[in-house]
Amino acid sequence: MSAPSLVPAGASPHAIRLACRSGAFAGLTSGIAAGYVQGNIVILPRDWADDFLRFCQRNPKPCPLIAVGDPGDPAFEELGLDLDIRTDLPAYRIYDHGKLVAEVPDIIAHWRKDFVAFVIGCSYSFEEALGAAGLGIRHVECGSIVPMYRTNLACRPAGRLSGKMVVSMRPFTPAHAIRAIEITSCFAAVHGAPVHLGAPEAIGIADLSAPAFGDPVPLRPGEIPVFWACGYTPQTVIEHAAPPLAITHAPGRLLVTDLLNARLGAT
Amino acid sequence: MSAPSLVPAGASPHAIRLACRSGAFAGLTSGIAAGYVQGNIVILPRDWADDFLRFCQRNPKPCPLIAVGDPGDPAFEELGLDLDIRTDLPAYRIYDHGKLVAEVPDIIAHWRKDFVAFVIGCSYSFEEALGAAGLGIRHVECGSIVPMYRTNLACRPAGRLSGKMVVSMRPFTPAHAIRAIEITSCFAAVHGAPVHLGAPEAIGIADLSAPAFGDPVPLRPGEIPVFWACGYTPQTVIEHAAPPLAITHAPGRLLVTDLLNARLGAT
Repeated sequence: MSAPSLVPAGASPHAIRLACRSGAFAGLTSGIAAGYVQGNIVILPRDWADDFLRFCQRNPKPCPLIAVGDPGDPAFEELGLDLDIRTDLPAYRIYDHGKLVAEVPDIIAHWRKDFVAFVIGCSYSFEEALGAAGLGIRHVECGSIVPMYRTNLACRPAGRLSGKMVVSMRPFTPAHAIRAIEITSCFAAVHGAPVHLGAPEAIGIADLSAPAFGDPVPLRPGEIPVFWACGYTPQTVIEHAAPPLAITHAPGRLLVTDLLNARLGAT
Repeated sequence: MSAPSLVPAGASPHAIRLACRSGAFAGLTSGIAAGYVQGNIVILPRDWADDFLRFCQRNPKPCPLIAVGDPGDPAFEELGLDLDIRTDLPAYRIYDHGKLVAEVPDIIAHWRKDFVAFVIGCSYSFEEALGAAGLGIRHVECGSIVPMYRTNLACRPAGRLSGKMVVSMRPFTPAHAIRAIEITSCFAAVHGAPVHLGAPEAIGIADLSAPAFGDPVPLRPGEIPVFWACGYTPQTVIEHAAPPLAITHAPGRLLVTDLLNARLGAT
């Protein structure tokens, strides 16, 4: 299920962003710009952005904030050379009162002076570290999208924003689960250690074979499911709160930054 | 099940060692000298010590070596002021060809110029960190000795020494298990992260209610058993290998050092 990529395998993050900007690239960002941090994007009008910033601060596992922009400013100097958040992603989704109304290649025409952009860490960063440690990641092996589930784990509310945590699941043997916990606990900027392992029903998941988002993956004998807080959480929370306007990245089409994944992992 | 303690609650490690030396204290060392590293002791003749040193190097989780003495030298300057390994533990056990033949208050009369003493990390150090993080430790709550089990996990052999790993078990909720893994992974000098969690039968444990050593503890609904490599492993390996002579600490009566537990935890 790899997307047709119009960027060379070794393209720099800057080259990828420019390809997004020109319209030459609109594909999935998994598997490109190896070694570099990718980010989920949420853009909100200022009066909602304040709530969201507090929501992220109170829920660092599902909403690990890598950067927040100044109102009206589309640049993120600390994240990348010449970065323009309005054009440098492969595709964007626009929500009107919580309803998806459009998927667009850039948001130049929609940008407003009161928009605040948030860049939120993504599991690609820690999956790279898990792979480097020799742990097989099932959905990568299957060439599918990580299975994600709604849970009964409540996020800490902030203003008009509240909701339950969405989690992603990766199956491991117990020994590999322990190693995965050790590794991901060093990646607080990208969801950190898991929030649960073992019995899915303990966090309100009725059926592992029916994820709310993504694709199911098989568990092999002796494996246990390990659950990480997922960057899909803020998106579902915002859809539920239904602000007049919100913009996010399109699924699987993230912001590629100049930051190195290795910089995120405390050692 | 707390032992009668003849040392004041706030006694320094040095004062405790002197009380052991004079015979004033021969009790359990759990719960005394809070904050300080305690060590399991193994003493072997030099020709066996070489095998054992390699065994520890190859099996750092069950045998985390804190210090090894010079042949014939009972001092450990790096571990404590004025420390004498022959007198400064509450009690010792002597094994003749793998058979326990005596429990004695000191080993002055047994000491030889070819003896090499090993000090091995103990779970007291990481249990203190778990408690400080707000995790309840079941056997401490029960006032009993941690349950320990023989497993089918093979240690890497070294010379005449080989055998299966012994593990200790602490039950936790999944969320607390994850936190416990994060914390103990920083304590490589005292067994480090767990070696297994969940299904006991996967590592050859048939019945959690029948530990090989220590006392069983109850698991509450939703809890999973979490298994750490245990300092009882070297003792069982040595008993099995049956060297002509071996000396260990008596169960629960460890060497109290001047090292701070906090120094062991990488952060």
